[in-house]
Amino acid sequence: MYWTKDFIPTLRQVPQEAETISHQLMLRAALVRMLMAGVYTYLPLGLKVLNNIEDIIRQEMELAGARELLLPALQPLELWAKTGRDKLLGEVMIKFTDRRGRNICLGPTHEEVITDLASNYISSYRQLPLVLYQIQTKFRDEIRPRFGLVRSCEFVMKDAYSFDADQEGLDKNYQAMLQAYIAVFRRCGLKVLVVEADSGVMGGSVSHEFMVPAKDGEDTVFACLKCNQALAYKEGKKENCPKCNSAMEKINTLEIGHIFQLGTKYSDSLAANFLDAKGEQKPVIMGCYGIGVSRLIPAIIEQNNDKDGIIWPVEVAPYQVIVSALDVTDENIMEKAKEVYDSLSASGIKVLFDDRDERAGVKFKDADLLGVPVLVVIGRDSVKNNTIELKLRKDKEKIIGSKEEVLEKIKGFLNG
Amino acid sequence: MYWTKDFIPTLRQVPQEAETISHQLMLRAALVRMLMAGVYTYLPLGLKVLNNIEDIIRQEMELAGARELLLPALQPLELWAKTGRDKLLGEVMIKFTDRRGRNICLGPTHEEVITDLASNYISSYRQLPLVLYQIQTKFRDEIRPRFGLVRSCEFVMKDAYSFDADQEGLDKNYQAMLQAYIAVFRRCGLKVLVVEADSGVMGGSVSHEFMVPAKDGEDTVFACLKCNQALAYKEGKKENCPKCNSAMEKINTLEIGHIFQLGTKYSDSLAANFLDAKGEQKPVIMGCYGIGVSRLIPAIIEQNNDKDGIIWPVEVAPYQVIVSALDVTDENIMEKAKEVYDSLSASGIKVLFDDRDERAGVKFKDADLLGVPVLVVIGRDSVKNNTIELKLRKDKEKIIGSKEEVLEKIKGFLNG
Repeated sequence: MYWTKDFIPTLRQVPQEAETISHQLMLRAALVRMLMAGVYTYLPLGLKVLNNIEDIIRQEMELAGARELLLPALQPLELWAKTGRDKLLGEVMIKFTDRRGRNICLGPTHEEVITDLASNYISSYRQLPLVLYQIQTKFRDEIRPRFGLVRSCEFVMKDAYSFDADQEGLDKNYQAMLQAYIAVFRRCGLKVLVVEADSGVMGGSVSHEFMVPAKDGEDTVFACLKCNQALAYKEGKKENCPKCNSAMEKINTLEIGHIFQLGTKYSDSLAANFLDAKGEQKPVIMGCYGIGVSRLIPAIIEQNNDKDGIIWPVEVAPYQVIVSALDVTDENIMEKAKEVYDSLSASGIKVLFDDRDERAGVKFKDADLLGVPVLVVIGRDSVKNNTIELKLRKDKEKIIGSKEEVLEKIKGFLNG
Repeated sequence: MYWTKDFIPTLRQVPQEAETISHQLMLRAALVRMLMAGVYTYLPLGLKVLNNIEDIIRQEMELAGARELLLPALQPLELWAKTGRDKLLGEVMIKFTDRRGRNICLGPTHEEVITDLASNYISSYRQLPLVLYQIQTKFRDEIRPRFGLVRSCEFVMKDAYSFDADQEGLDKNYQAMLQAYIAVFRRCGLKVLVVEADSGVMGGSVSHEFMVPAKDGEDTVFACLKCNQALAYKEGKKENCPKCNSAMEKINTLEIGHIFQLGTKYSDSLAANFLDAKGEQKPVIMGCYGIGVSRLIPAIIEQNNDKDGIIWPVEVAPYQVIVSALDVTDENIMEKAKEVYDSLSASGIKVLFDDRDERAGVKFKDADLLGVPVLVVIGRDSVKNNTIELKLRKDKEKIIGSKEEVLEKIKGFLNG
């Protein structure tokens, strides 16, 4: 893609509205724009990152045996009355009465809807296990939306639901999901802490949270900095690491995922039953598994940045390479730059061609800010010496070589 | 994908709620399920079709020079007050007041939001032309939702917006979009009528509608059945085809796309101005371009079905091939079927493996109902004669040949 044909309105100044580093960088690097507090537009670069994260999640969910569907945002409130969660969620749930007099809510989560769907489909143990997931936009009436995509009123979640005939099946699906989560976060370039957690409004027993250490995170855990172990924080308690016995520190974290063994809480309330091998009717045993998809973007940025901007992990980067022509008025430079751009694009690499009529300093600053993993610089020297210059965003390592050498180097780097 | 590991709850009976053929087939072929009137869940097959349509649209939009972003569903009502459209849209717009006292609506369309975004970005003619689009979920409080995804309260739209410095630029973008629309609908297997139309609540002058002839369509046009020409219907008028002079017939249609030259209606109201080459301030000239993405599914089915089920055009089909093992208790049949499934999958073809322990009759009926373009049948004869049988869904043409012959035939057919 040519920069001049893309829509990348980067900002020089740090916008006043943004307190955290991730929020500042998301605005400056043209990933999102605020429409109103807690509500954001994804600009092309932000949408590309979101799509990359979604693709990673889809791949790992399918590997874990989950099948994708898409549930509605509009939900009948009467379904929530059956589990009593309409009252439990309270004012955070957006509700309205439509012209036909129906009481409707915008789903802040989908346990009721999926259990209702499953109850209409599952009749026999032969149809179990079943794991379904969706990547969908959810709504919450947040009294205090903040930190950009961290706490917003409209956000993207991945929610998966498992249906099993017995606890053994649930344990198996739960473990498969836990492993899938670890794979997703690793591919997103995130270091996470896995914490045994309280089930809260979801109900059920066993539960794990996935936490990213973050200075402005709203959650706290006890973390062992030596062996990456973590425990739920309890006021006034001191704990030692159960693994290495070092003292644990209280740190701020950002919750990016949460998985629950629900048991029969929802299947009991919504009559999701099946006949077992003996012909006896039993409630299906459920688990649910959430990832804050849009929240992963600020989480990744919090862990992957320096004073100059974002440093995208390769798999989530909006582009993999920027080819920067330092003087667009010089025909020789432009010809060489286009040649490199075409070669990289032909190899299936996602390349942004900085063809803007801007000073080299502006181009370098924007490249650092955007955080694309590889920068290829084509200037006067490239034409004179028939070489091109490569710079890796992460460690600012520079390599100068022939076109062929540099292309090989890039392919090697991107394939890890 | 193995059928037993997928989630394809087909229905034998025609559900009472469904009046039109597309609605009946969408429910029976396990594409969607109703949550409440006007609100639907996409099951895995329906979501695959939706994604295929979205991919086609993305490809044609990018070719036409449009860049993708994602605007929020939640919108501040004060933005709509500036164009006066809050009153114009009236009760069809879902509105609520949040806990912070903000008046918010669920966007039934996005002209106000995108013009507001553009006004913050565009300052000079050098930034024009700019074309942006999104594929996004929209909400309407329909008093009479019906025909499944045809008129629903929650639906997916593609909306694009062009920003130009002058009418000449708008004409060029408008033409590019019109051609992109024709390409999208052709690839979706749709025969469409293009009709000059009224601009309605959008405002502006030139406008075209894209119509699919459909028995239960809510719109009407004059159509020339000889040369595919169409004109807006006017009560009490008789018209002759402007092209071939034949008499025109009044037919029912389903609107699937609508494009508008908006001019400066929105840029005037929302102060979206730019400085031209002479340094004079002018309002940007806009166009907007909509496709009813989720509505395309019933439109495609209305035009592509027979008494046995759906006949998917290749590019939108949820799977391209079904491999059907007629007796899953026969090891030789299963081995051969898996071999064919693996070969096809390895070629990048999307294959569904019918590994259900069901009678051959059930499998054939479901294959016809699902409408996957190619069916490969592996039964006792296949093992005995070392052949496999291929059946095309569209014309029910049968071919029996060696595995190699049939695989070549399939690849040839799928590549058109």
